Amino acid sequence: VASGDAAATYALVGSLHEADLGALLELLDHDARHQLIALMGADFDFTALTEVGETTREDILEDLPVETLAEAVRDLESDDAVAILETLEPDEQAEVLDALPAHERVLLSRSLNYPEDSAGRLMQTSLIAVPPFWTAGQVLDFFRETDPDLLPDNFFEVFVVDSGYRFLGTVFLDALVRARPDRRVDQIMQEDRRRLNDMDDRAEAARMFERYNLVSVPVVDEAERLVGVIMIDDIVDVMQEAASEEIKALGGVNPEEELSDNFWMTARSRFWWLLVNLATAFLASSVLRLFENQIEKMVALAVLAPIVASQGGNSATQTMTVIVRALATQELSRTNAVRVIFREAAAGAVNGAAFGLITGVVASNWFQNVGIAPVMALAMLTNLLAGAFGGVLIPLTLERFKVDPAVSASAFVTTVTDVIGYGAFLSIATIWFHLS
Amino acid sequence: VASGDAAATYALVGSLHEADLGALLELLDHDARHQLIALMGADFDFTALTEVGETTREDILEDLPVETLAEAVRDLESDDAVAILETLEPDEQAEVLDALPAHERVLLSRSLNYPEDSAGRLMQTSLIAVPPFWTAGQVLDFFRETDPDLLPDNFFEVFVVDSGYRFLGTVFLDALVRARPDRRVDQIMQEDRRRLNDMDDRAEAARMFERYNLVSVPVVDEAERLVGVIMIDDIVDVMQEAASEEIKALGGVNPEEELSDNFWMTARSRFWWLLVNLATAFLASSVLRLFENQIEKMVALAVLAPIVASQGGNSATQTMTVIVRALATQELSRTNAVRVIFREAAAGAVNGAAFGLITGVVASNWFQNVGIAPVMALAMLTNLLAGAFGGVLIPLTLERFKVDPAVSASAFVTTVTDVIGYGAFLSIATIWFHLS
Repeated sequence: VASGDAAATYALVGSLHEADLGALLELLDHDARHQLIALMGADFDFTALTEVGETTREDILEDLPVETLAEAVRDLESDDAVAILETLEPDEQAEVLDALPAHERVLLSRSLNYPEDSAGRLMQTSLIAVPPFWTAGQVLDFFRETDPDLLPDNFFEVFVVDSGYRFLGTVFLDALVRARPDRRVDQIMQEDRRRLNDMDDRAEAARMFERYNLVSVPVVDEAERLVGVIMIDDIVDVMQEAASEEIKALGGVNPEEELSDNFWMTARSRFWWLLVNLATAFLASSVLRLFENQIEKMVALAVLAPIVASQGGNSATQTMTVIVRALATQELSRTNAVRVIFREAAAGAVNGAAFGLITGVVASNWFQNVGIAPVMALAMLTNLLAGAFGGVLIPLTLERFKVDPAVSASAFVTTVTDVIGYGAFLSIATIWFHLS
Repeated sequence: VASGDAAATYALVGSLHEADLGALLELLDHDARHQLIALMGADFDFTALTEVGETTREDILEDLPVETLAEAVRDLESDDAVAILETLEPDEQAEVLDALPAHERVLLSRSLNYPEDSAGRLMQTSLIAVPPFWTAGQVLDFFRETDPDLLPDNFFEVFVVDSGYRFLGTVFLDALVRARPDRRVDQIMQEDRRRLNDMDDRAEAARMFERYNLVSVPVVDEAERLVGVIMIDDIVDVMQEAASEEIKALGGVNPEEELSDNFWMTARSRFWWLLVNLATAFLASSVLRLFENQIEKMVALAVLAPIVASQGGNSATQTMTVIVRALATQELSRTNAVRVIFREAAAGAVNGAAFGLITGVVASNWFQNVGIAPVMALAMLTNLLAGAFGGVLIPLTLERFKVDPAVSASAFVTTVTDVIGYGAFLSIATIWFHLS
């Protein structure tokens, strides 16, 4: 690329799959990306841009001329075109749309008008719909006689619609080819096909695909008219994105953060979560400060208190992780919530007793002070129980109030176990050793 | 169900989708499950058992007679049959296999001989393969004339194989129906189709589907012979399972743990991770103990040290989460590792400076001691920098040594930030306030 040799570049890059081309673009810097695209000219496969991160896509798109973009958008499947258009600034978006033929402009604008996380935004609008009175043979003839450019790139089913374009059912290609040519499509179509509404959330679409092992789902509007189809490959991306967001949220990372962000963006995006945690750390330490006198009399307490707090925090994090995951996969519902709360409490009591015993023995030996054993044991049991309840009830409560528990639960949960861990250990010690 | 009314049960449950029937089985207790299956008799759809958790499946299967199981396994797609057979004890598995016709027994045994996480175990073996000299019309006629029971339930493509069953290419149904009937399949087949080896790992299969937006992938053996096909709906389950495992591992939960486990299994499975963390907590506290004299002279140190440790731990967890995720999605490789290490170090320095300033000001006001500010600031900066390096280098090192970083990194990372947080803060304080 650096030498500007178009033929050599094409020989190397031309046959790459869009996903590999996308990975290559991620690795190049700004100048090399643009040189590569310029060298490849009309042979550049813009689908590759749907395979790169948001930051990279913006970087590539911001300098491309409107005509190139309009040309690219025309060649793409509608859902890929929408993915590229939504990256553009509103005025650029309008320019590109204006440069398109009326028919495509209308379809794409309609898709762009759907809310960002809706099924309508995700669906592709090119599909094959036939009237119910056609026969299987007619449909097959239609495929052979139609210009391949007008058919979708890949399809697995034919939709059956009435004269008002209302969705009646679907005929999978394997059913179509197995049917006698004179059978009417409404006799071989599947009528109880699951469908999505265009305003449904993407996450709901993903759950439907996953639960019912689907490969494609028709999308209808509020009048039951067929408006598009969502394919499994787009849903796979939604699922992976959702998993990434949940993992990042649990780790206190902004889901928008990307590996290609620079250090300044990274530091800023992480600052706020750390600030919240700093506040909770000061809160926990103010509990420690309440017992300054006791610590001064018996420094061992300052050494041991963090162990109680940390063990409670880790145990509560286990519980919270299980609950957050079960909420995300909808395994946890009102039916089994009570059973799970009791299970977690009982498991917390068992491990609280076990670790109370272990830490009591170890700590009393460490400090050659037998009295430390019962204090440590009781505090550990209390904190692991508190952690179990916190780990279940905090995510459930956040979910009830429509706050994403993956994002917010951990700050609350560790505050509970820090405050109760320090508080319980130091109060019990104060009473046991008559320190007040 | 409780009243034993078979007709009423059938009316309620008979039309449920297998996924909904599975969800219903999850909610019932042991007796009700068996009553339901007995009432439904031959109408019970055993596919539902592939939709329930491992514990539930074992519970249902352990009491069913061998003949019922053999009957069920015969009716299922091969991959679902394998999923049910692998749940059984080896001797029961052998009994069920013996009760099957020879042809099915051979196919299923072959699948069961593949390693548990291999593509071979995941694939289904029923597929349509045709010789290269057939025409599109011949293939279509073959579909119409073949008994539908002998064809797979759903298929999107026809595989082309030579006389030695070596995989030559694939013809998607949409290409088939678009082709002229007299075209030979080797003229319309796609030859550069991505394929998997039967011994490939499931995770690798999932990455291939995700990266290249595939719906199905042929599986070949080491001699390039076609042995099966993996469908996207099975891969979606693999992906969701991988995401769940990563989330659980990061939260210190055994990936095998299930929501239906009882409290005793739950407590046991979480015990070991907590024990490891307890050891690291004692390690961190032994650093605190090294400074017992200084803490006795200045109790504020015991109150503030956990803030330094906790802020470092949270910051390092953010870094670690990003790195573990990027390793899982293969976004992070040798090419960009150095850049990411520098980015994290720089971001750690920026936030270290910011929180050093904030905590220094807050803490010195809190304790009315100006000297605390520089001590706190320097310790915070040191620990956030250490956390950044630990958060990047520990997962990368674990990955290099083929240890899953999602499982093990967090224990190491928080040990680093606890030890360095306590150590740095208390050493700097010792020097600054001349406490030794």
